[in-house]
Amino acid sequence: MAADDGKKKISESTIQRLSLYYRVLSILEKENIKTISSKELAKHEKLTPAQVRKDLSFFGSFGTRGLGYPVTELKNRIATILGLDREWKVAMVGVGNIGSALVGYKEFQRHGFSINMIFDNDQRKIGSNHKGILVSDIANLKEGLRENNIDIVIIAVPATVAQYIVDDIVEAGVSGILNFAPINLKVPENVILRNENMSMELEHISFSLVNRESITATKE
Amino acid sequence: MAADDGKKKISESTIQRLSLYYRVLSILEKENIKTISSKELAKHEKLTPAQVRKDLSFFGSFGTRGLGYPVTELKNRIATILGLDREWKVAMVGVGNIGSALVGYKEFQRHGFSINMIFDNDQRKIGSNHKGILVSDIANLKEGLRENNIDIVIIAVPATVAQYIVDDIVEAGVSGILNFAPINLKVPENVILRNENMSMELEHISFSLVNRESITATKE
Repeated sequence: MAADDGKKKISESTIQRLSLYYRVLSILEKENIKTISSKELAKHEKLTPAQVRKDLSFFGSFGTRGLGYPVTELKNRIATILGLDREWKVAMVGVGNIGSALVGYKEFQRHGFSINMIFDNDQRKIGSNHKGILVSDIANLKEGLRENNIDIVIIAVPATVAQYIVDDIVEAGVSGILNFAPINLKVPENVILRNENMSMELEHISFSLVNRESITATKE
Repeated sequence: MAADDGKKKISESTIQRLSLYYRVLSILEKENIKTISSKELAKHEKLTPAQVRKDLSFFGSFGTRGLGYPVTELKNRIATILGLDREWKVAMVGVGNIGSALVGYKEFQRHGFSINMIFDNDQRKIGSNHKGILVSDIANLKEGLRENNIDIVIIAVPATVAQYIVDDIVEAGVSGILNFAPINLKVPENVILRNENMSMELEHISFSLVNRESITATKE
């Protein structure tokens, strides 16, 4: 429903597939494999070769017909497209169960997402050191995000307070938010908000188990 | 690419929207609101009323033209469709950082997903009590899952061992798996496997931030 603003349009599932290609190519590179065909790349992800070629052609021309794609070059190109060729400054808000686990989640660091600020409202946690990072008072959220030029904030707070916190984050000028609170948050159009709801993935499974005899889930 | 097996087909995004409708309806019910129009329901999720009506009509007829949907009835109906009207027996494999946080994740319990077995390979954890649940030896995974009639297994183990563990889970007859290991796993067609890759959500954000001037992500 966005106005036609002259921007190219890409589907969310294409972006997700780029992340998957990136992972496969990283493994192939480590195995010292130099080239890969769209057919092989498709097989890894249970896609069609045409889908792979279409996804990649969106970003210009890659590879040589008959020779396949050069692994390292394609991997690096996708890294640039996904913004993985730089370091992102990430802040975590809320270090309860989930937030605390995410601070130690090595996959984030590995892909250039470096959590270097933590905020919480628990007086017992504020001022303490959490996996090497000082826990700041959430009362100083706005100033802290601004002063440290934070690019992306991850929220793992109770649903009841999430919107207030998001409002502060937006006011601080941060335009990327990953939300783990089980609630729909409102942000201005220029802010990128993604929701991670792990319970919904389980519901997808229970739906499929309950309806397996009568309904098939399809990608589109 | 599945053969035409006479099953109805539903898109994955419709299933996800059912989960969202369910959440909104649960809140409305608590607020003692009796009916809601497709227009209002759409507004909550930034969808069109036509989309909401289409999603719901897939499962038969709901509501009365002009009067809207009865909140409680629709909520209960969606709960049945999603399999949320029963208790699912869930086992967690791997209680490191992420697995441990998931065991304490209240949203799972709230939606009928009850984690009542834990497996790990760490001798220091085996036999101990983890948030009220005994940690079993992963060597006994297959027997344990079978004997306890586990419906769904959540995997939060290193990528290098995930496929071996999944093979055991499948052999034990479990047909719902939620995978947090950052790797593509192979399962037979009758097994429902969902992947949760939190790093990929961050990559979606970094992609959007890097390309915000030139590319817009769309749902389809």
